[in-house]
Amino acid sequence: MGEAAVIALLSGGVGGSRFAAGLYDLVGQELTVIVNTADDEVIYGLHISPDVDTVLYTLSGIGDWERGWGVAGDTFRCNEALGRLGRDNWFRIGDADLATNLLRTELLNSGWRLSEVTELLARRLGIRCRVIPMTDSRVRTTVVTSHGPMTFQEYFVKHRAEPEVLRIVVERSQDERPAPGVVEAIEGSGFLFVAPSNPILSIRPILETRGVLDAVRSSGAVKVAVSPIVGGRALRGPADRLMRAFGMEPSAYGVARYYAELFGLDGFVVDRADASLSSRIESELGVRVYVTDTIMADRSEARRLAEEVLRFAGTLR
Amino acid sequence: MGEAAVIALLSGGVGGSRFAAGLYDLVGQELTVIVNTADDEVIYGLHISPDVDTVLYTLSGIGDWERGWGVAGDTFRCNEALGRLGRDNWFRIGDADLATNLLRTELLNSGWRLSEVTELLARRLGIRCRVIPMTDSRVRTTVVTSHGPMTFQEYFVKHRAEPEVLRIVVERSQDERPAPGVVEAIEGSGFLFVAPSNPILSIRPILETRGVLDAVRSSGAVKVAVSPIVGGRALRGPADRLMRAFGMEPSAYGVARYYAELFGLDGFVVDRADASLSSRIESELGVRVYVTDTIMADRSEARRLAEEVLRFAGTLR
Repeated sequence: MGEAAVIALLSGGVGGSRFAAGLYDLVGQELTVIVNTADDEVIYGLHISPDVDTVLYTLSGIGDWERGWGVAGDTFRCNEALGRLGRDNWFRIGDADLATNLLRTELLNSGWRLSEVTELLARRLGIRCRVIPMTDSRVRTTVVTSHGPMTFQEYFVKHRAEPEVLRIVVERSQDERPAPGVVEAIEGSGFLFVAPSNPILSIRPILETRGVLDAVRSSGAVKVAVSPIVGGRALRGPADRLMRAFGMEPSAYGVARYYAELFGLDGFVVDRADASLSSRIESELGVRVYVTDTIMADRSEARRLAEEVLRFAGTLR
Repeated sequence: MGEAAVIALLSGGVGGSRFAAGLYDLVGQELTVIVNTADDEVIYGLHISPDVDTVLYTLSGIGDWERGWGVAGDTFRCNEALGRLGRDNWFRIGDADLATNLLRTELLNSGWRLSEVTELLARRLGIRCRVIPMTDSRVRTTVVTSHGPMTFQEYFVKHRAEPEVLRIVVERSQDERPAPGVVEAIEGSGFLFVAPSNPILSIRPILETRGVLDAVRSSGAVKVAVSPIVGGRALRGPADRLMRAFGMEPSAYGVARYYAELFGLDGFVVDRADASLSSRIESELGVRVYVTDTIMADRSEARRLAEEVLRFAGTLR
């Protein structure tokens, strides 16, 4: 890597956590992962923080890589027992995963901040880099669909992101601030990466956290995003359909344009499937493009992608 | 049984739940079990109600008969994961058992009363008789020991009831009342039974619930208790040592005397090991004694004991 790379990464869940793991394996504690919390909810009385947990589990190596959530090899005895007790149990939490959610809820209820809980969990899981939720304030996302309004997890998990999305309402507290360390990480980084996460559901809520977009804009870091859209489709989740619904072109180009217009982008990484979009992105948006395999089927691929992205970003300084 | 027996049973955990199961098998919904909640606590942020759950699990048949708590065959993945996260995890809750505690906590936090939650759980577990916590108010028990003051579960589980008990402080709310149905069950029963439970830790808190002792005293029911002390020792737990510490004779006689003086007892059931105490109990306390095997190693033995006790009680009308 040559000199140490100080990196801030904006991340959602599955794709973001994989890319985070790749970077973490390369730069260790030089990485700070800033994680979306707009899909946090209270379910079964527990404060769940899906993207934070996916990042923690993936970084620490206990996560289920393929499934993209929860702990590998986990059982669902509690979840099944909830069903037997007549509790609607569509939101599945594994038994080991429950421990994380119990401890977080207990600590939050005793006055801890989400960022403090996250730091404790990261340390207990043996993670040496920083993982910071975008904010300690509660953010509530309501997805207004053709089936009516629902919480994010109802939309995403219960209804498998199938209903047509008409509107997304993100309620944020008036006195919301970024969690401690978020702005500092963005301002102090040499590289600011945007993970291959859903731009609307995962990255936008981070950028809309009061003060974050300004910090990103004014940061002197080299800014590079990895496309979550491959061949016009999201690898997972509804990013492509959502982009279309929100008037964006559902393509790698559309993602690049969104970030380029929002905060200025130095580089953009697209999959080989989208190599043909390179010249359009470079000429119309003035963003340098790097083409490679972006699908991270295992951790070594994530490391390989991270290494290529780092090298690419290094050329943009 | 001849005519239907309407029974109210005052019960703690293990021994009480077994005797309750025996009675339940005989009289079904004619039974109302009034359960101690003085060892309820909040652990891992969950409202645990150990005696209530032991009664529910034992009646429904999903309980671990031998262990006396939790669900048979349960796993402890969550509990182990809590330990890996650095959370003190001496209080073991099985994964299926967790579902009960999660649901109870969620419902209590949304305004349900403990008795309502208990009724729901009983129904969902297929139990046809009433199971009522002694009160819907929170009761906090502090055990002051030679090792310092501790919560009941710290004393009982973490320290295995080993420290010498100096004092037991039961904090009860000023506006405490018996849960709905408790007084009615006591007043309306033909038989009022006291299960073979710890008289100090389990039965006394029920009787000290405002209005309960008066209801027991004035009830026209035939009142029969089963001794939890066999051969001078508690089958389980610290009842014998506690009785000694509290100036009571740690014997079946001591238990009979305690109840006889407190509310008047018609009959008392002792184990064959204590047959020699019969004449003393009968002559000194004026309480009729029935001698049999009181150890309920399985449900059929519980049924057999319940049948004998019912028949004995029938002779006392």
